[in-house]
Amino acid sequence: MIKTDILIIGAGPTGLFTVFEAGLLKLKCHLIDALPQPGGQCSEIYPKKPIYDIPAYPEILAGDLVDRLLEQIKPFEAGYTLGERAETLKKQDDGSFIVTTNKGTEHHAKVVVIAGGLGSFEPRKPQLENLSKFEDKGVSYIIKDPEVYRNKKVVLAGGGDSALDWAIFLADVAAEVSLVHRRNEFRGALDSVEKARELAQLGKIKLYTKAEVKELHGQNELQAVVIEHSEEEKQPTYLEVDNFIPLFGLSPKLGPLGNWGLEIEKNAIKVNNAKDYQTNIPGVFAIGDVNTYEGKLKLILSGFHEAAVMCQYAYQIINPDKRFVMKYTTVGGVEGFDGSKKEAKKEVVQSII
Amino acid sequence: MIKTDILIIGAGPTGLFTVFEAGLLKLKCHLIDALPQPGGQCSEIYPKKPIYDIPAYPEILAGDLVDRLLEQIKPFEAGYTLGERAETLKKQDDGSFIVTTNKGTEHHAKVVVIAGGLGSFEPRKPQLENLSKFEDKGVSYIIKDPEVYRNKKVVLAGGGDSALDWAIFLADVAAEVSLVHRRNEFRGALDSVEKARELAQLGKIKLYTKAEVKELHGQNELQAVVIEHSEEEKQPTYLEVDNFIPLFGLSPKLGPLGNWGLEIEKNAIKVNNAKDYQTNIPGVFAIGDVNTYEGKLKLILSGFHEAAVMCQYAYQIINPDKRFVMKYTTVGGVEGFDGSKKEAKKEVVQSII
Ligand SMILES: Cc1cc2nc3c(=O)[nH]c(=O)nc-3n(C[C@H](O)[C@H](O)[C@H](O)COP(=O)(O)OP(=O)(O)OC[C@H]3O[C@@H](n4cnc5c(N)ncnc54)[C@H](O)[C@@H]3O)c2cc1C
Ligand SMILES: Cc1cc2nc3c(=O)[nH]c(=O)nc-3n(C[C@H](O)[C@H](O)[C@H](O)COP(=O)(O)OP(=O)(O)OC[C@H]3O[C@@H](n4cnc5c(N)ncnc54)[C@H](O)[C@@H]3O)c2cc1C
Repeated sequence: MIKTDILIIGAGPTGLFTVFEAGLLKLKCHLIDALPQPGGQCSEIYPKKPIYDIPAYPEILAGDLVDRLLEQIKPFEAGYTLGERAETLKKQDDGSFIVTTNKGTEHHAKVVVIAGGLGSFEPRKPQLENLSKFEDKGVSYIIKDPEVYRNKKVVLAGGGDSALDWAIFLADVAAEVSLVHRRNEFRGALDSVEKARELAQLGKIKLYTKAEVKELHGQNELQAVVIEHSEEEKQPTYLEVDNFIPLFGLSPKLGPLGNWGLEIEKNAIKVNNAKDYQTNIPGVFAIGDVNTYEGKLKLILSGFHEAAVMCQYAYQIINPDKRFVMKYTTVGGVEGFDGSKKEAKKEVVQSII
Repeated sequence: MIKTDILIIGAGPTGLFTVFEAGLLKLKCHLIDALPQPGGQCSEIYPKKPIYDIPAYPEILAGDLVDRLLEQIKPFEAGYTLGERAETLKKQDDGSFIVTTNKGTEHHAKVVVIAGGLGSFEPRKPQLENLSKFEDKGVSYIIKDPEVYRNKKVVLAGGGDSALDWAIFLADVAAEVSLVHRRNEFRGALDSVEKARELAQLGKIKLYTKAEVKELHGQNELQAVVIEHSEEEKQPTYLEVDNFIPLFGLSPKLGPLGNWGLEIEKNAIKVNNAKDYQTNIPGVFAIGDVNTYEGKLKLILSGFHEAAVMCQYAYQIINPDKRFVMKYTTVGGVEGFDGSKKEAKKEVVQSII
């Protein structure tokens, strides 16, 4: 059982910054995210795109924003359960909570913060008869560790950035990379399209366009796929492979959070924004894109503010007998749980003569 | 009469970021500040100190934060009335407002946003009989333009950073710089103290410590000061000077805002934080350090959020018949009033083969 002060569901920008605000109050955090990496929408959907409305950043790439946040929270040594979806919430007799993931990992905390954004990102799956049989036995939808594919024969499917970027990356890792897409045209960053073109010409990526994977074959593990071509005269291609990775995008689903007894409105969790961003379940807060209230703006900067406010109230729940006196970071400095200490240079009181 | 969409009182970080959020909604802003420079507390009190809790900035000097904000809002061409205090607010028959400063400058807008922080910064003045007689006639409390003192004989008083830093700066500008302080010890950044010491040894700053300016002399303009020494045996020093600048710090005063009929609580302006940060006067909003509500945190990041929310409602007041559909800056880009345009690189849809 993982134990922490504040359990954060969702490691998007809001969840990450919560670690910092909690850390200033000497509270420890643990984050759960369905994705294999932190950063939420910024990392998953648009890491290479600029954001212009982060205060005091005239321009910052979404991926760089996440990197800066990770650097900022580093002193507070958060724990992570990545690639798992928070599935159930159980209130204990003492008012604390146990949250269990789809893989059975249990987490215990006095305060639960849902920073789940638009929901946990779930892969869009192709319609293939025996798809589920091969899941984790050759078929996967997100790439956590590319080393898994070293010297393997891999088929990727999809026509967007993920499919392009992973095909390019795996070209140097896998024994064979095939990329299957329904159309001739790919949609992605110009340099990704160009690089993929180059590798295709060198034969390092085998391209099957106007084509779709239609059958999966194998005993226990995946052993082959059948690719059908939309040009009628073309015969289906039978391809021996170790892995099939359809990259048709991830779509966020509120999912299990919808069954936790939380008040849901417009596919988001209703909170008390006049006070502490708590939900209808005391001890459970919701901040960032996942919450709703009158006038809610789904902006990154709003998640930051909500995190700061919410942590003050979480402190009261976790330390009912203590009073925390807020100090500006400039004045009090930042003391990490890792022993690090940042502080402003002290003024001196000195005679000049 | 200066006309604008949103009149912002206070050019601290909150007021500055409001220009950006308003600009995204195509609303023009004008800022009034009692200080000669924008940045509020960050510029006036601790420009060289690091802040650690600005999201995605593991560390940033307060002065740099202000510079980044100024860069970010540049495309939206805000107007400024600096060095003047907003004194009166008058509601017009059509619901719009006229705000007049202590120097008589009039501003007209449909929406007024008070981002006044701890109040307008007012200088702490020494107790000297005929001080007010010489104000702006040799006596001043803040230095707007150091060129005014070129080749002048200047007496500065004070023992903190401002007194040290201006003494150092004016040593190269003025004909003569004297620095008077009640004690031997100065309180300031180590390098300021050291630099001042060096200049004193070179005779470029004349130091009078354990001393106070006690008399001012002159016909219409200031012509001389009398410095008394705390060591009893020492005779007072009569010094011919052009300027006397007591730098005893600025202390913020809610001041005239207190008489505008706004609901005041704990020396701050009560707002509806469950909605739009509007005050009890419709059309007048209060954001940043100057407002109060249950659980209010006087943090820079909260002012940013409040600005974003508030601008949405200001839009409705200014454009009652239009509906604004928010677009992420990443998606819609940022179009400046100066004709500039920032936008993310478009994706391409291209055939690879
Ligand atoms: C293309 C695009 C452009 C954008 N541009 C801007 C912009 O310019 N400015 C701006 O302010 N905002 C912008 N946004 C919105 C911004 O990205 C979001 O406001 C922000 O990501 C919200 O952060 P969050 O941490 O609340 O949620 P998210 O970033 O959505 O992160 C939530 C995380 O929670 C996880 N999660 C959810 N439920 C579970 C569960 N049950 N178990 C485990 N994990 C779970 C998800 O997997 C996800 O990683 C843009 C969004 C997009 C898609
Ligand atoms: C030493 C110190 C360290 C700090 N450290 C941190 C930190 O680490 N993190 C953090 O988040 N915050 C910190 N703060 C607080 C932070 O500086 C404030 O929250 C922030 O400046 C508030 O911004 P603002 O724009 O709301 O108000 P202010 O910065 O106070 O600006 C308000 C402006 O309004 C002007 N004004 C007011 N009334 C009038 C009027 N009638 N007419 C004309 N002008 C007027 C004032 O002159 C002033 O310039 C610190 C503050 C200090 C003093």
